[in-house]
Amino acid sequence: MRVATREEIERALEGLDLLPMIEQAFAGYSAGRAVVPPVGELLLEKGEVHIKYGYLRDDRYYVIKVASGFYDNAELGLPSSNGLMLVFEQRTGELACVLLDEGRLTDVRTAVAGAVGGKHLAPKRVERIGIVGTGIQAHLQLEHLLPVVSCRDVLVWGRGQAQIDRYMADMSPFGFRIEGTLRAEDILSACSLVVTTTPSQQPLLHVSSLQPGTHITAVGADTPEKQELDAGILARADIVVADSISQCRERGEIHQALQAKAICEDKLVELGDVIAGRAQGRTSDEQISVVDLTGVAVQDVAIASAVFEALG
Amino acid sequence: MRVATREEIERALEGLDLLPMIEQAFAGYSAGRAVVPPVGELLLEKGEVHIKYGYLRDDRYYVIKVASGFYDNAELGLPSSNGLMLVFEQRTGELACVLLDEGRLTDVRTAVAGAVGGKHLAPKRVERIGIVGTGIQAHLQLEHLLPVVSCRDVLVWGRGQAQIDRYMADMSPFGFRIEGTLRAEDILSACSLVVTTTPSQQPLLHVSSLQPGTHITAVGADTPEKQELDAGILARADIVVADSISQCRERGEIHQALQAKAICEDKLVELGDVIAGRAQGRTSDEQISVVDLTGVAVQDVAIASAVFEALG
Repeated sequence: MRVATREEIERALEGLDLLPMIEQAFAGYSAGRAVVPPVGELLLEKGEVHIKYGYLRDDRYYVIKVASGFYDNAELGLPSSNGLMLVFEQRTGELACVLLDEGRLTDVRTAVAGAVGGKHLAPKRVERIGIVGTGIQAHLQLEHLLPVVSCRDVLVWGRGQAQIDRYMADMSPFGFRIEGTLRAEDILSACSLVVTTTPSQQPLLHVSSLQPGTHITAVGADTPEKQELDAGILARADIVVADSISQCRERGEIHQALQAKAICEDKLVELGDVIAGRAQGRTSDEQISVVDLTGVAVQDVAIASAVFEALG
Repeated sequence: MRVATREEIERALEGLDLLPMIEQAFAGYSAGRAVVPPVGELLLEKGEVHIKYGYLRDDRYYVIKVASGFYDNAELGLPSSNGLMLVFEQRTGELACVLLDEGRLTDVRTAVAGAVGGKHLAPKRVERIGIVGTGIQAHLQLEHLLPVVSCRDVLVWGRGQAQIDRYMADMSPFGFRIEGTLRAEDILSACSLVVTTTPSQQPLLHVSSLQPGTHITAVGADTPEKQELDAGILARADIVVADSISQCRERGEIHQALQAKAICEDKLVELGDVIAGRAQGRTSDEQISVVDLTGVAVQDVAIASAVFEALG
């Protein structure tokens, strides 16, 4: 049994091409080959813990992920979010590996899913990438778009100039030409590939600024309360893609738009079906598409298995 | 963060007086101080995995336990059951310890719970202890009764003479005088403190052999299907104690007796309430009592926390 530290995990990640693995995980999920029980939840006075677990039937491992958020940790000089993954053999139940990733693998698999969304749904010509938010996912999502789109012009929205400046300093070394804005409506006016990454509970992007030929990957909203996109955007979109239709009924942008009766469920397709060619994705550069990512345990299974095998 | 092997855990266990800790855990549970979400379950082709987790509100840690059973492992020379426990800080969510106990701590906390049941419910005078079964729990339950009762005369029932002989050889060195029987009805005729430890799905003990002044601790039945006691025993009993009333509704001997309408739920008291003096236990040596143990996550919390602190 192997115990891997965050540093070892970082090194293992460097050599991995995760995008096809996450594509396969989504395709397997949408084909009904995944077993993903309901998420376990433990609420404490100072925080909350989620337990996500599952496997793909024809795979080697099953994975149990423990992820936590503790509100007062910042005051104690500790990260507020934390996590680890346990990798087990499907055949015997033996614990193969404890990945002490402190939540890093969740961040990465979420960013890779965004890249998968961009790869399959973005219009062919992207003149500008729009990033909503300046946090960890705002960084990782843009970084993971590098192999997926050739565009290097970026407009970033943030709540303050300091956050925007820091983001520009962090991301310019990757080869991006980045401008910032404090007006969220600029994003939809200027960008045709947009990634939203905030924990907002009020829409930041509105249908009034939406242009033909836009693709939006919505990453931030992963609870029943969070929402970054006005429901009218999903109503106007030609293609609305869920990472998991069953989960998006309960949380995220699609949940909000269904609640608002802005869309019907028959409008939805699942990302894994688009990847596998079982569902129609984008057919023209004029279409508007939205991919709503709420996070599915098969992503954890895919990245944890890959990292474990790469540890050697 | 500490990772403890089974050997280190064994050594830590040696110095621990677990009985009062498990008593406190039950008392806290019955007083409503425990948070124990529903058990997570993952079913695989070759086995099944259960995730139990929870905490006591005024305690320091929360614990997540992963326990598995894999049917074909014996053929591969591997143990069929396995497990580990994760100990986290309630205040920050930090992982304090990974206990690679391989299921050992579950076995021990189950045996200690049996001793707690015997301590609080057995009649004062026990002339003979009856053990039903010859497996791991049959061993551990008897061993853990040593500090609880002075009686050293034992009658053990097993499915075959070979199993009985092995059990006698294993347990005699603890100071017990042990006889064996292949007829389960001998147990209730001869013994006033009985522990049942098998995975039987058919009653092994019947009300027709039940004597006044008998206490039975029923450990084996922990699923909706398993049953070692004929429901008439619970109907005849003066005191029927559940480790968790809510859980015993769904599984174990009490579940079976409720299903058979042999008892009503208002007959039940909870072990933690008996321990804390909030519910009436045995008041005379002539009474018949049954304690039904299905296993509660607070036992895991108690033993994992104690072992972690004892690791030093």
